[in-house]
Amino acid sequence: MIKIAIDGMGGDYGPEVVVKGALEALKNFNDLELYLYGDIPKMEKYLTTKERITLIQADSVIAMGETNPIRAIRNQKDASLVMALNSVKEGVTEGIVSAGPTQALVVGGHLIVKKLPEMQRIAIAPIIPSLDKKGKILLDAGANVELKPEHIYELAIFAAIVFQNYFQKQRPLVGLINIGEEKGKGRAQDLASYELLKTSNHFQFYGNVEADKVLTSEADILITDGFTGNVVLKTIEGTAKTMGLILKEEIKSSFFGKIGALFMNKNLTRFKKRFDASEIGGAMIFGLKAPVIKAHGSSNEVAFYNAIRQARTFIKNQVVEKVERVLKEINV
Amino acid sequence: MIKIAIDGMGGDYGPEVVVKGALEALKNFNDLELYLYGDIPKMEKYLTTKERITLIQADSVIAMGETNPIRAIRNQKDASLVMALNSVKEGVTEGIVSAGPTQALVVGGHLIVKKLPEMQRIAIAPIIPSLDKKGKILLDAGANVELKPEHIYELAIFAAIVFQNYFQKQRPLVGLINIGEEKGKGRAQDLASYELLKTSNHFQFYGNVEADKVLTSEADILITDGFTGNVVLKTIEGTAKTMGLILKEEIKSSFFGKIGALFMNKNLTRFKKRFDASEIGGAMIFGLKAPVIKAHGSSNEVAFYNAIRQARTFIKNQVVEKVERVLKEINV
Repeated sequence: MIKIAIDGMGGDYGPEVVVKGALEALKNFNDLELYLYGDIPKMEKYLTTKERITLIQADSVIAMGETNPIRAIRNQKDASLVMALNSVKEGVTEGIVSAGPTQALVVGGHLIVKKLPEMQRIAIAPIIPSLDKKGKILLDAGANVELKPEHIYELAIFAAIVFQNYFQKQRPLVGLINIGEEKGKGRAQDLASYELLKTSNHFQFYGNVEADKVLTSEADILITDGFTGNVVLKTIEGTAKTMGLILKEEIKSSFFGKIGALFMNKNLTRFKKRFDASEIGGAMIFGLKAPVIKAHGSSNEVAFYNAIRQARTFIKNQVVEKVERVLKEINV
Repeated sequence: MIKIAIDGMGGDYGPEVVVKGALEALKNFNDLELYLYGDIPKMEKYLTTKERITLIQADSVIAMGETNPIRAIRNQKDASLVMALNSVKEGVTEGIVSAGPTQALVVGGHLIVKKLPEMQRIAIAPIIPSLDKKGKILLDAGANVELKPEHIYELAIFAAIVFQNYFQKQRPLVGLINIGEEKGKGRAQDLASYELLKTSNHFQFYGNVEADKVLTSEADILITDGFTGNVVLKTIEGTAKTMGLILKEEIKSSFFGKIGALFMNKNLTRFKKRFDASEIGGAMIFGLKAPVIKAHGSSNEVAFYNAIRQARTFIKNQVVEKVERVLKEINV
């Protein structure tokens, strides 16, 4: 059995989408056993089975707007997120999924689940949409405002092993996000990262990728520091949302537009889905001793289901163990 | 008369869109006189009048893919871009518009037109679209990979004065692009920029703006270093383009989609236009002794016309002189 801890209360919509997503995962994978931490009466409402699912009472929740995640993790021992993280630490479960506040999950992962001793940094790594529908891994999306070339390098290896196990591609292409395609572009740290990345034989180095090619380049993994990665991810989200609003505005602005929309209703829904984070999965926290997956805060049950599916793949394929093995070889 | 130098050969489409855009500008502004540098026979083909327009022969062109812009600017004295820049230096004209390669224009502006002595850095400042249709100024979009807080500060003043003169708003809102809205977010340089920006009385400091709000926040000016600004700009472009492709793919994927598109043809055109750089204008190079405007390389004649209109406003409102005055006051 693969045992996964679930933060039953995290996210903007609380236990409903979490429990429904969890039930969907249990239905699809019969090797799965889930531990839901949260307010039992609130979670129970949505429960239709008790098979392979355990509810554990947690009396508090870390708020989505929490501004001091370190203090929250340290003080709220009875928070659903903290209890779920502790279950991983104690070996009750092998990984965790939460839709709670990202920084609290990063800090909590760091303090409770702990970093792999072979890793110097952890990173937030969402799967982002791509034109070819395959999806890519972007990192670091905000765990570290700065990363040294050697951190970029070890995180690229982590990402490559995850990509191999998720997308069944042996030597994934790693691209360095930069302000020009040619070698020699960027800041001092980007030049140094470029030189280091091209020495690896655990992935294929694609070279620099300009930000306008992030969604369309052939690179499977796009790597940069946490400041830049966060800016890229948020700019994609903001642009997609704004374009969606403008499209809606323009369609509604005329009678023929509205008629047209009736005809292409299904097309527009598919269009929306292709940029919808919930169809893709959660953001992974790389570098920890166990899989920690962040489902989107505005997750629906599909998103939450996908995040659980991700955690299961992570555990089943022993991604963390594989990374450890590779990093140990390198550091010999 | 306002005299503007035009690089007649720059850009992906060469003299046709340049000459047509120039003619349109002359038609709309009778205080305008244009000097077109380029291959006279090639430019003449599209000329319908000789009033207030002078053609000057330039025997070479700096290629769009030029990888060594410094060398190109130094060696190609007969290039249309170099001759146009020299006309500004010599006082024949008061500003320049080119659709040629950005880095060559930045380097050429620096070497030939020269930096204002009061400015420590120059910056690339495009006008970007916004949900409210007003447009915003983004900088630095790539002139400097790194900028110190004091550079950010003087560039914010430059941007504020430009914004006042373009958009008739007395105290524009300046936002610092960052990875969180709260004070205390970002890298060391972002924290220092935050503290410095809030001391100015030449603009109103809006605080941090996360990248997902770049197109929708109330800030009129969005400032950051040239690495981050370039990443933001390119990510917006790439996401918009990819979403456009996906929308087209999904519409074409079914019969009803195609029918729907016929009904909403005009709506889709307006949608496209609202994210179209050509409707907004060129990128300004801030910090030089005279207005230098970069029209998009893939400019159509509307884009080129808009870039000329921008240069005219810049000159007519004496933006450079106003910036000098303010910076002198500050440095006393």
